Amino acid sequence: MSTFPVLIAGQWRPSQSSGTFRVENPATGEQLPGEYPVSSWADCDAALTAATAAAAVLRTLPPEQIAKFLNRYADRLEARKTELVELTHTETGLPKAPRLSDVELPRTTNQLRQAAAAVLEGSWAMPTIDTKNGLRSVLGPIGPVIVFGPNNFPYAFSGAAGGDFAAAIAAGNPVIAKGHPLHAGTTRVLAEEAFAAVQETGLPPATVQLVHRIEPSTGLRLVSDPRTGAIGFTGSRSAGVKLKNAADAVGKPFYAELSSINPVVFLPGALAERGTKLAEEFAGSAILGGGQFCTNPGFIVLFASEAAEQFIAIVKQKFEASAPPVLLGKPVVRSLTEGVQALRAAGAELIIGGTPVAGPGCRHANTLLRVTGAQFLSSPEKLQTEAFGTASLLVIVRDLAEAAAVLSHLEGNLTGSLYTDTAGSDDAAYAQLEPLLRVRVGRLLNDKMPTGVAVSPAMNHGGPFPATGHPGFTAVGIPASVRRFGALHCYDNVRAARLPASLGNKNPNGKMWRLIDGQCSQGDVS
Amino acid sequence: MSTFPVLIAGQWRPSQSSGTFRVENPATGEQLPGEYPVSSWADCDAALTAATAAAAVLRTLPPEQIAKFLNRYADRLEARKTELVELTHTETGLPKAPRLSDVELPRTTNQLRQAAAAVLEGSWAMPTIDTKNGLRSVLGPIGPVIVFGPNNFPYAFSGAAGGDFAAAIAAGNPVIAKGHPLHAGTTRVLAEEAFAAVQETGLPPATVQLVHRIEPSTGLRLVSDPRTGAIGFTGSRSAGVKLKNAADAVGKPFYAELSSINPVVFLPGALAERGTKLAEEFAGSAILGGGQFCTNPGFIVLFASEAAEQFIAIVKQKFEASAPPVLLGKPVVRSLTEGVQALRAAGAELIIGGTPVAGPGCRHANTLLRVTGAQFLSSPEKLQTEAFGTASLLVIVRDLAEAAAVLSHLEGNLTGSLYTDTAGSDDAAYAQLEPLLRVRVGRLLNDKMPTGVAVSPAMNHGGPFPATGHPGFTAVGIPASVRRFGALHCYDNVRAARLPASLGNKNPNGKMWRLIDGQCSQGDVS
Repeated sequence: MSTFPVLIAGQWRPSQSSGTFRVENPATGEQLPGEYPVSSWADCDAALTAATAAAAVLRTLPPEQIAKFLNRYADRLEARKTELVELTHTETGLPKAPRLSDVELPRTTNQLRQAAAAVLEGSWAMPTIDTKNGLRSVLGPIGPVIVFGPNNFPYAFSGAAGGDFAAAIAAGNPVIAKGHPLHAGTTRVLAEEAFAAVQETGLPPATVQLVHRIEPSTGLRLVSDPRTGAIGFTGSRSAGVKLKNAADAVGKPFYAELSSINPVVFLPGALAERGTKLAEEFAGSAILGGGQFCTNPGFIVLFASEAAEQFIAIVKQKFEASAPPVLLGKPVVRSLTEGVQALRAAGAELIIGGTPVAGPGCRHANTLLRVTGAQFLSSPEKLQTEAFGTASLLVIVRDLAEAAAVLSHLEGNLTGSLYTDTAGSDDAAYAQLEPLLRVRVGRLLNDKMPTGVAVSPAMNHGGPFPATGHPGFTAVGIPASVRRFGALHCYDNVRAARLPASLGNKNPNGKMWRLIDGQCSQGDVS
Repeated sequence: MSTFPVLIAGQWRPSQSSGTFRVENPATGEQLPGEYPVSSWADCDAALTAATAAAAVLRTLPPEQIAKFLNRYADRLEARKTELVELTHTETGLPKAPRLSDVELPRTTNQLRQAAAAVLEGSWAMPTIDTKNGLRSVLGPIGPVIVFGPNNFPYAFSGAAGGDFAAAIAAGNPVIAKGHPLHAGTTRVLAEEAFAAVQETGLPPATVQLVHRIEPSTGLRLVSDPRTGAIGFTGSRSAGVKLKNAADAVGKPFYAELSSINPVVFLPGALAERGTKLAEEFAGSAILGGGQFCTNPGFIVLFASEAAEQFIAIVKQKFEASAPPVLLGKPVVRSLTEGVQALRAAGAELIIGGTPVAGPGCRHANTLLRVTGAQFLSSPEKLQTEAFGTASLLVIVRDLAEAAAVLSHLEGNLTGSLYTDTAGSDDAAYAQLEPLLRVRVGRLLNDKMPTGVAVSPAMNHGGPFPATGHPGFTAVGIPASVRRFGALHCYDNVRAARLPASLGNKNPNGKMWRLIDGQCSQGDVS
């Protein structure tokens, strides 16, 4: 059987591998053609050496050339859309339409093009000039970036095409992509197009590199190598925390998206006003995409009442009526099963679902569980176990004080939602609960489900640990996500001819916003 | 003997201490009056509880009130200047004038007032509005901040008055200051004035708290407690790395300034053109303040030549002619002695100095050492040992290729300097070496010594590990240093009345810069 190559130093070449793996169709359990290498340290070492050389060249190139690459890559992905979507569907079970072809691929090319626009405009780097003190600073490239893509967004978060990739390249860095083994073929095709665009636009060949899979010990070495600049990681908490610790120990910025159960609180007035509608809204959001979103609403707070029981009954009906979706692969079924078991072991009562569906495909019953607020408070850590997939835990609180106590015990999350009525009867409760939720989440929603994550400058796809490793950063939204991959470069008394263009007296494109002697300006230094 | 109290929850109260310590006058070795407590976990636990409550109130206060506190605190420090400077001089041996009264105290009050101005203006928090998607985001308070002050800047980097303190408060957070035991009285007086200003301006009493000293195990617990928001640390690499690891493990942002030897390269043309002047310039910078600066030029690259030997002869003379300064305390003499010994053990040859001066005061001979480039390359790690104080290592390289190799082996530093001639004969060497230095330092200087650190928006007092823990942040310079203590808070579909003022449709002060639908603007949302 043929083994696919890795992309290192501008060559699709055989991996120096420590083993191989294959990809399965999760809908059928059937193995797909070809096998993929598990890269040894030798592959990673070679990739880091090539990336270091590429980084030195990239920092000398004009922004136009990097922007051209990002745009050209987006064009190429669109041109290969039909083949790509077909392959990804086979590897992931995700619907071809609308999900892959009409939502995720357009989102991905949009991110690449937004990144290109940010590069051309240049304000993302926050150029700052102090003429009195002869000081000028700007975010410069941080160095080779390793991007670990997750299982659930084969395009939009891919190590070779997603948000971290686009941001790292936009900041002027080469990327070493670590693919996800559940959709290795997809990442391979993405990297083919990325590399073709690299060649077309004359970037250094090692601007984009790809390894399909690495042993955990190789990963620890890769993220903590002196040549590494930073890391983008989206994936499981257990793997992510190990890698984060290794990177942290040597001061390598590790931008992680690890775990989130996304609390949603339905206040009594909202339930009284529009309980049926809200039950449908929640069920739709929870079931969407097989619940395989980082922002899936997994933790629901309801106030004990008849209305809450009606809400639960409707949700149960919706969960029953929806066929168990094909999940991304066996590991997802396994971790969901374990997550549900952990919640039950901690006292959660099963309302519906709770077990995997017999094969050949990868499926798990849509699952709802419940506990009382008092039960949650007696075991708050275990009852925050993430059950990635279509599973949600309902926490039925006695009163506002108990709701406040529940929220006070939450770990960091990407999102938190508060549903309120329109008449104002929930206002006091909102005022009491909002501060507790605000400091524990990155994105606070009002009367809205968390599953949509717009690519917007005002988005925060981040939050306190363990949602991410640092509450100041977002993985989605330009320009903020680009800044993660910049190092602050100050120039003190440096002669004019030796400054980067963004710090020259002349505004390089007449559009870049710079802080000049304390004033925001698109003008030249006078 | 009386034991000084700690400041916790708005009370100067006896510490629940695990021991006591005293402060010595480093010029005489004499013990100063009174003893200070080593706080147990009980003190820190109480401080965190009080800080959490204070944080909840602080986030509801108008910016005007926080700015008023910062300004009032600056005024109060100036009013108590004579007494403060006298005490600090006694505790640290630093000259009363110009250093303490004319440089460091004005720098400190200036930082507090710049922070106040940033709070009032509000742009530091980067408010971002996307009307189409109903998304608004801003940097909100990160939570209680622990600030560990260093030995060498008793005011400007103090946990109770310095740059991290000002930035943390400006971002809306309470501060728990950990004083430095070598100048405990100074920090006590600072905290007295801070607390008086807190009371005058009606901030929550626990906005400023102080513990004088804690056991290492208590420190690890403090920085990793769930109630902690972030940490600012300036101090030794060994202590800092242990605290950083504890904080990193639970995702608490740890802004550290750890270690820097600040490489300075004198290119041949510069030495030929103005060697005598440069030797004097370097010697002055190296001796300044007893060399007790994070930005002290400790690592000098010279090209083997007659001019280099003349340079060294002049520097030697200047070092000889300058009396060994009073150092900050016994631990500084000890670590300097150990640092110099480590450099000699790794092959450095002593040119002058090398040993402590016999007591009673704390002094160490001004020290110069040298190695060849080849020697450095055979032991690059050990020959980057920081010797904090008046000690510099001269690295004599054979040629440009060897200089490049030396720079390629450097760890991260706060600063790096390149001296060049005015005629252009160093241009090619600059072009070759600058990229190597650029990626290894936060602030790149040209024809300038690194010891001055202006409080400027364009300053970077930061750099790659081990200079700091993250190359994207600066500890000096507003607004950037304030942003370190913000958490990104996104509001999605949140009703207008529930938004913070900075995200309302109306620009709250007509001056705040906001990114509204992709455009920088000081206007309202239309």
